[in-house]
Amino acid sequence: MKKRMALGFVLFVSLFFACGVVWGLDEIVEKKTFALDEFTLVSGQKISQVKAGYETYGTLSPTKDNVILICHYYSGNSHAAGKYAATDKVPGYWDKIIGPGMPFDTDKYLIVSSDTLCNMNPKDPKVITTGPASINPATGKPYGMSFPMVTIRDFVNLQYKLLQSLGVKKLQAVSGASMGGVQTYEWAVAYPDYVERIIPVIATPKLHGWLLAWLKLWGDPIKLDPKWNHGDYYGQEEPKEGLTYSLMLITLSALWSDWADKSFDRKWADSQKNPSDAFENEFLAEAALHKRAFARTLMADANSMLYLNKANALFDISQGFSSYEEALKSIKAKTLMIGADTDLLFTLPQLRQHAEVFKMAGKTVSLFEIKSQFGHLGGVLDIAQASDAISKCLAE
Amino acid sequence: MKKRMALGFVLFVSLFFACGVVWGLDEIVEKKTFALDEFTLVSGQKISQVKAGYETYGTLSPTKDNVILICHYYSGNSHAAGKYAATDKVPGYWDKIIGPGMPFDTDKYLIVSSDTLCNMNPKDPKVITTGPASINPATGKPYGMSFPMVTIRDFVNLQYKLLQSLGVKKLQAVSGASMGGVQTYEWAVAYPDYVERIIPVIATPKLHGWLLAWLKLWGDPIKLDPKWNHGDYYGQEEPKEGLTYSLMLITLSALWSDWADKSFDRKWADSQKNPSDAFENEFLAEAALHKRAFARTLMADANSMLYLNKANALFDISQGFSSYEEALKSIKAKTLMIGADTDLLFTLPQLRQHAEVFKMAGKTVSLFEIKSQFGHLGGVLDIAQASDAISKCLAE
Repeated sequence: MKKRMALGFVLFVSLFFACGVVWGLDEIVEKKTFALDEFTLVSGQKISQVKAGYETYGTLSPTKDNVILICHYYSGNSHAAGKYAATDKVPGYWDKIIGPGMPFDTDKYLIVSSDTLCNMNPKDPKVITTGPASINPATGKPYGMSFPMVTIRDFVNLQYKLLQSLGVKKLQAVSGASMGGVQTYEWAVAYPDYVERIIPVIATPKLHGWLLAWLKLWGDPIKLDPKWNHGDYYGQEEPKEGLTYSLMLITLSALWSDWADKSFDRKWADSQKNPSDAFENEFLAEAALHKRAFARTLMADANSMLYLNKANALFDISQGFSSYEEALKSIKAKTLMIGADTDLLFTLPQLRQHAEVFKMAGKTVSLFEIKSQFGHLGGVLDIAQASDAISKCLAE
Repeated sequence: MKKRMALGFVLFVSLFFACGVVWGLDEIVEKKTFALDEFTLVSGQKISQVKAGYETYGTLSPTKDNVILICHYYSGNSHAAGKYAATDKVPGYWDKIIGPGMPFDTDKYLIVSSDTLCNMNPKDPKVITTGPASINPATGKPYGMSFPMVTIRDFVNLQYKLLQSLGVKKLQAVSGASMGGVQTYEWAVAYPDYVERIIPVIATPKLHGWLLAWLKLWGDPIKLDPKWNHGDYYGQEEPKEGLTYSLMLITLSALWSDWADKSFDRKWADSQKNPSDAFENEFLAEAALHKRAFARTLMADANSMLYLNKANALFDISQGFSSYEEALKSIKAKTLMIGADTDLLFTLPQLRQHAEVFKMAGKTVSLFEIKSQFGHLGGVLDIAQASDAISKCLAE
């Protein structure tokens, strides 16, 4: 059961289409642990005994500068490619573009990916993270909402420490989808001399009003559930109803009509129960959304999602600069933005606007537009469309 | 206060843009009441003492066949044009296309619009409706969830009875946006010989899986609020938290990124409270969404929304036919579909598909695409873009 849950959301979507699984990195990979006795956040607050899981694919060159960092999305983790066991049904989420001869070529590059702070699935045995569900060494109890507020810059700083521990001298590129793309932008302003290229996917250099409003809607159901209890629910009943609702909304807002229409059309959830006969008789679209979201609560932690929501909401590359223009000026990395035409969260018009602003500021930038039936998830499921654009970016 | 609320959602959106208000129907209009001692639903169930508000603009011709029926959207009512008082800040929601010399020309046509059963704002003094918040004459208490389940066909049948009471011999057209568009399609299969043209706006001839899933998310927060109490809350505390959340989601899913980004960008809700400083410090996008939704709960009724959700979810023109094809065959009306390019609920690709299916079935059909920054609401706020297309349709 646990294993099935761990396959993650990509499988949920893929199953309806029986997408042929392309094995990019046809090898068994391993989750490793990066640990720090103490980590200081941008806010000045310190966290003791920080752990972050990470995976690597490929080999570090003698000059230690052939590295590509992949940052994960909101509901994801560092499992970007390969399989943990030969029996795994699906590989890491970007396996289609990572592997020998693939755009993120493991014959040439060392690919590194790590779990962020406050990963939303701390109960997933393959996630290693430090966040509100972790034990506070000072009290011996879970932090809950006493965990310090974290930012995307903190995620990036922790990744930087991981890369330093591996001896990495330079990043050929940073890439990632959605919250991973957000981290990618942050890398460009945080360590401008360390990053040659950024390839942010389905993301913008700051969170806009539109997504700020959506993030509120993602978080509020958790807080409205009395069992949330201001974050103090560990060891007791969890706010499962609020969490399930939140996961339904996240799922749906990350998708698009084509997917839902083809998957469910107007089928009934139960062929014996006509939705016309009773209020509680559902269509399959309703029941499937609920079933999957409920299943995901086995791994997800409500507080961790609130921390991720806040970190994302606060994201703006101009944080720490006098203006957005100054932040933009500081970027040295060549930029390849990748968007998806049906993305409802980071919309294509937003990405086009940002590409234009980068261009006007004299940056080397291009924008590749994925055509997808999967909405926001097009940046994960249809990323192979961008293969040539990524290869070209890395070759330049 | 009540008055301000009654201005409805359109004002909320318009205020951010200070849209110049174009007065189409520059006259004072009046809400009238259509009453029936008994109304029989398609299900066979009967409702006693049914009332429906309606408005008319223009004059019925001697041949009584110059009539256009306008059906209202989910959160709307029959106030499609004109003002109730000279001091009204905004006119009816489609005033830009209704009036002398406008596409829905009050010099030529009698425009009729009526409040549906289970209108979601029964507390609005300008809404006259019969639904779960109405007093059940048999018990002297509000129906609550004992009100019979209603369908879009029931809405249409009640409108037909209203039109018969006015002596209307023929409809030159039926039109409406969103749930109004849904009723428009239903009219074409319910009374094929009575309807010359249909102009469904931001709607499809059946609800797709995508929207079925969204409707579930619109309704669940109400049911998750313990104060909902299975619909038995009249005279007690109402499920205001769930209702507010639901209205936030409805608002946001009916809009689009351009609107939110321009209205709010990354402004703080309170210039003294940096969102970086505390979890509860919000961005303006979050606070404004909540404030407006909370205000709307003054008029809205939770149960009525659940009834509307169900009526919409059940909508499919093939209900009562052996197949979708048979339903389509029965349509005699010329069809002008109108969509909005940024609509997330009834998406433009869906509308294009349906236009194609109508065409393949030999129907006279065309599709006009509104370009809007307002998402689904483009079908209300930017309807004037379709003026020529509507005029042309009516002239043919």
